[in-house]
Amino acid sequence: MKKDTQIPYKIYLTEEELPTAWYNLRSAMKTKPAPLLNPGTGAPLAFEELRPVFCDELIKQELDNETEYFPIPEEVFSFYKMYRPSPLVRAYFLEKALGTPAEIYYKFEGNNTSGSHKLNSAIAQAYYAKKQGLKGVTTETGAGQWGTALSMACSYFDLDCRVYMVKVSYEQKPFRREVMRTYGANVTPSPSESTQIGRKILEEYPGTTGSLGCAISEAVEAAASRPGYRYVLGSVLNMVLLHQSIIGLETEKALEKYGIKPDIIIGCAGGGSNLGGLIAPFMRDKILGKSNVRIIAVEPASCPSLTRGKYAYDFADTGKVCPLAKMYTLGSGFIPSPNHAGGLRYHGMSSILSELYDEGLMEARSVIQTDVFAAAEKFARVEGILPAPESAHAIKAAIDEAEKCKETGEKKTIVFGLTGTGYFDLVAYQRYHDNDMSDYIPTDEDLERGFASLPKLG
Amino acid sequence: MKKDTQIPYKIYLTEEELPTAWYNLRSAMKTKPAPLLNPGTGAPLAFEELRPVFCDELIKQELDNETEYFPIPEEVFSFYKMYRPSPLVRAYFLEKALGTPAEIYYKFEGNNTSGSHKLNSAIAQAYYAKKQGLKGVTTETGAGQWGTALSMACSYFDLDCRVYMVKVSYEQKPFRREVMRTYGANVTPSPSESTQIGRKILEEYPGTTGSLGCAISEAVEAAASRPGYRYVLGSVLNMVLLHQSIIGLETEKALEKYGIKPDIIIGCAGGGSNLGGLIAPFMRDKILGKSNVRIIAVEPASCPSLTRGKYAYDFADTGKVCPLAKMYTLGSGFIPSPNHAGGLRYHGMSSILSELYDEGLMEARSVIQTDVFAAAEKFARVEGILPAPESAHAIKAAIDEAEKCKETGEKKTIVFGLTGTGYFDLVAYQRYHDNDMSDYIPTDEDLERGFASLPKLG
Repeated sequence: MKKDTQIPYKIYLTEEELPTAWYNLRSAMKTKPAPLLNPGTGAPLAFEELRPVFCDELIKQELDNETEYFPIPEEVFSFYKMYRPSPLVRAYFLEKALGTPAEIYYKFEGNNTSGSHKLNSAIAQAYYAKKQGLKGVTTETGAGQWGTALSMACSYFDLDCRVYMVKVSYEQKPFRREVMRTYGANVTPSPSESTQIGRKILEEYPGTTGSLGCAISEAVEAAASRPGYRYVLGSVLNMVLLHQSIIGLETEKALEKYGIKPDIIIGCAGGGSNLGGLIAPFMRDKILGKSNVRIIAVEPASCPSLTRGKYAYDFADTGKVCPLAKMYTLGSGFIPSPNHAGGLRYHGMSSILSELYDEGLMEARSVIQTDVFAAAEKFARVEGILPAPESAHAIKAAIDEAEKCKETGEKKTIVFGLTGTGYFDLVAYQRYHDNDMSDYIPTDEDLERGFASLPKLG
Repeated sequence: MKKDTQIPYKIYLTEEELPTAWYNLRSAMKTKPAPLLNPGTGAPLAFEELRPVFCDELIKQELDNETEYFPIPEEVFSFYKMYRPSPLVRAYFLEKALGTPAEIYYKFEGNNTSGSHKLNSAIAQAYYAKKQGLKGVTTETGAGQWGTALSMACSYFDLDCRVYMVKVSYEQKPFRREVMRTYGANVTPSPSESTQIGRKILEEYPGTTGSLGCAISEAVEAAASRPGYRYVLGSVLNMVLLHQSIIGLETEKALEKYGIKPDIIIGCAGGGSNLGGLIAPFMRDKILGKSNVRIIAVEPASCPSLTRGKYAYDFADTGKVCPLAKMYTLGSGFIPSPNHAGGLRYHGMSSILSELYDEGLMEARSVIQTDVFAAAEKFARVEGILPAPESAHAIKAAIDEAEKCKETGEKKTIVFGLTGTGYFDLVAYQRYHDNDMSDYIPTDEDLERGFASLPKLG
């Protein structure tokens, strides 16, 4: 087998080389992301207004558009060493299978029990909650990766963890639920009888299997009504992208170690936690005019917030209990058609990424589900990793770009984020194998119905 | 957090440091493991007799008690680099949680999609099958790790892979089945209508949910009756322990890199594939009088082949179609009580390990299931990895040894093998959480019934 002996299959940084601070991409942005607004007054939300819901230190990180680096607290850094650095893998086997002149790398975040990059922010948020002397945190989970990550993080800091899991997931993914139980979390199928909003919804819609919007509302209520608790979120927010910058910083260092310059960086995009983290230092260089790397966000055609959404203020949740955020959105009332990449079924996109996309600093494309699973299976067979459906969106785009290189003969360097593993997504793989998978793309009328739910502002 | 800054959390060898040959522990053994016998004649099986069932090169490895090192073929080595080296992890978090002066390390083999060490031998066996120009291989799988590993290996070498999966597992673990399908394997629930023996068993026992013994018989028949096919096995055999020596060789090198001398090495033991691989170089030094490291095999109390079995010739399979092997055994007719560590529910133990145990070079102990899951959960919460039930047997013994050190104040160095992850074993975790798990230990009468199935020789 011909191979480039200069670059190993897997580049691991040493513990000494690990980044010791998170990078705040907002500090480099010429136009800062639009602030969160109070849905009642339409005014930017101040620190004090956010305190009943979020931890103090996290609010500071959320609102700070200027500080470049936030040192990673020692206890978080120590936990990171349990599963980081994650490897930057040279996809020699995939390159060979495609017969492409392109060089492909992927940053693999799946080698921890949560099975995804979500742990990077979960441990940070749990740490700040503990530091504030809180008893516990509440959250919602759909696909289950975030809930699992938060359970692990809370177990480590001995915090109570209450997860509202969308009922249909709770029932269809009993194994996800069981992992959370192993880490001591309290998992409640949502909607539940344990909150006012849950009881109200159950009364109005008996037999409902729930939604992410409802689970968020329950989790927020549970935090607000219980002394010593706060609510935490695994994506969309500025603070989450800040914590996830560890992905990009490690990637940057690993590439530099071998003198590799990326031409294209690709990531899947739901709320933006992974993509925002992966691209952070590369986007900084692009903003500063030091690099002309292409950055591509990949989203499902069934939930195309960047490619077909509107850049507008919207509710962050379907239940409309959260602040308004300016983002590319399909409207909080948009209902995506069945898609097995649960982590990408969010109606909006992080304000940071929305702004960068709006400024033309980032590209976006959407892909259909069966193409994604075809790419996932091809990848699994040659690279030996069973990818999460979310991650496979990035694989699909990376393969497409590598095949373009094959046509043109260009030897581009492609880096993509492999956010996680698909061990809990095998029902989706089964559907794919059984040709029982929908590729429904929303019609313009579907989108109009979603846009109709956008708030009318001043 | 106090920590030893000298030794990192995870020791990764570089690709240049990877072992390039497998080590054959038999070459160091003073008394060689007893040969396989022809069940008809009682005479040692010769190369030619094994050829209809196994690949030629693998038979050579099986029968060779003298060669010290077998170079790892380049294509296998290249595949190894996809997921190896595996990390040797310093269990700082577990040490702290236990408050022990002991230093604990574990060699983690779960960071690949098969979820276990099984891939180390699967890729070797698939390679030799391909090299011989075969069309495909057949095998059986119970818990599913071996079947998954072999599917991955066959996909890589474009070999047909036919897996007979014990019907109860096929039905209860649809996700394992689906991973194999993703890698292109043909998975048949056993007993099936596709073989003579399967049809016979279905006729005699309609509605049976199968057994490992039956699945082995079907896989062997399927290989023998199909031109261009051979049968492969994931444990027990000498060749498998040879391939698995990669675990021990990497562990040895990683320990040497930091000048660490182990006092105790611990591994779970079913057929012996993991333990035999992990201990290979350390047992060599012990045989040669260069080391007095303690080596401990841990088995389930429900299937105690070493601690309560007989050292005798026995059938390797319940269906009695395989050769006779001399081993510590409970008798091929022994039926273990329900235990969720499917990989440890084998009635016998590899001939190599049986001989070493008989000579007093190795200790053995058995542990009950609920204690194993308690250890698994404790480990998961502090070390962040959800272990397979099999692997958790080693965790339980490692924790016990570390707690002894706490009592005596001794600062021993404990190394254990963490063979894999438990993502497909969450039904077992659920049973544990729900207090619905049996700790049945076979009575002397149960054992006598098993021993009655031992063949009467000469």
